[in-house]
Amino acid sequence: MISVLLIGNGNVATHLANVFEKAKNIHCTQIHSRTMVAVPKADVTVISVSDDAIAEVSVKIKNTLVVHTSGSVPLNGLQNTTRKGVFYPLQTFSKDKEVNFSDIPFCVEATNDADLKLLKQLAKSIGKNVFEMSSEQRQSLHVAAVFVSNFTNHLYAIGEDICRKNKMPFSILKPLIRETAAKIELLSPKEAQTGPAVRNDETTIEKHLKVLELHQQEIYKNLTKSIQHGKEL
Amino acid sequence: MISVLLIGNGNVATHLANVFEKAKNIHCTQIHSRTMVAVPKADVTVISVSDDAIAEVSVKIKNTLVVHTSGSVPLNGLQNTTRKGVFYPLQTFSKDKEVNFSDIPFCVEATNDADLKLLKQLAKSIGKNVFEMSSEQRQSLHVAAVFVSNFTNHLYAIGEDICRKNKMPFSILKPLIRETAAKIELLSPKEAQTGPAVRNDETTIEKHLKVLELHQQEIYKNLTKSIQHGKEL
Repeated sequence: MISVLLIGNGNVATHLANVFEKAKNIHCTQIHSRTMVAVPKADVTVISVSDDAIAEVSVKIKNTLVVHTSGSVPLNGLQNTTRKGVFYPLQTFSKDKEVNFSDIPFCVEATNDADLKLLKQLAKSIGKNVFEMSSEQRQSLHVAAVFVSNFTNHLYAIGEDICRKNKMPFSILKPLIRETAAKIELLSPKEAQTGPAVRNDETTIEKHLKVLELHQQEIYKNLTKSIQHGKEL
Repeated sequence: MISVLLIGNGNVATHLANVFEKAKNIHCTQIHSRTMVAVPKADVTVISVSDDAIAEVSVKIKNTLVVHTSGSVPLNGLQNTTRKGVFYPLQTFSKDKEVNFSDIPFCVEATNDADLKLLKQLAKSIGKNVFEMSSEQRQSLHVAAVFVSNFTNHLYAIGEDICRKNKMPFSILKPLIRETAAKIELLSPKEAQTGPAVRNDETTIEKHLKVLELHQQEIYKNLTKSIQHGKEL
């Protein structure tokens, strides 16, 4: 049995609390970061708060092993004087969308083997993919995640906007969105690339720019240029 | 039985030929656009060649109904003197990836009801979603498709590049890519937006920019700005 103290009440904390509760070998207590009068003891204290609150929350914890769940804060962003670690679930969490934890990669980091082992065990009890990585690697991964998830979602938003303005349902784009994501399970993104940019089809590119709003044109030009200079990636 | 003459041998033509062949009520003959000595008669002649070859191929066809499969060429881009139409399957086609046609939206356009009915019947015999739309709507949809598919795939390529440079497998990003696409089945892209840009988390944004190459920084800044000004979309 691993005892976990989970500090925080944002999206990540809420989803983690739900999944820890269901795991057989975990006993999880959740507290809010603002009500830390008496901090319960635990094998692993998981701080799951906004990045800029990690230091100030961690400095108050005396428990043996304190970890955070952030992609972009290094291990040393923790200010506790006991042992430190990172337990970063690489996924996009929204309040109203359930998440399948068995699919999530857990990125762990610690300063000694016993802690690493414990964090891996914790990850395995709610998921199946665990990756050990440095703070530098994790931060790069976080940037990559912004591109493939946050920015991709924004491209979906632009697609929805174009549909709405032209009186078409956004649902018409969903099979294409699904297939675009499914393709890279089989082909590399480079092999999977299609469209006017990679074909150097300047006629279509010019036509497209004419129907876009100014700031969408900027994104279109920028990404088209990047696709056409793909070898420099 | 609908007789189809399919002209072309690119990705779209090849995938269409395969699925027409399997359909019970379609008899399909495929010819290359460069070997049009004798053009067989057919109920529907489907020109599936590159956009800039549509005019020159169509001018040689005397069959009753001639359609093209392009998203961005208007109906009047066809130069045949007989009836014209459009049969645009909205999907990303690659040579080495099978496609599930039952999921594909077919966008049809014609100048009279009988032709529209025939094109809808043709679509229904290989798929289930048919949308009637104007050339202007189709062109806008094509632009939207570039954003949600071609550009999204390029963001996957950037994600892969960052992983490779930091000695991590691209596969670590795949669950996130799947979930990002799955989320918008339930939430609108706007509701689904997460990440440093929408949180106005300038500390993380600054950190991210430091680990990116110059042209990736440009894309990062551009998309971050667009997310932050989302209300102007």
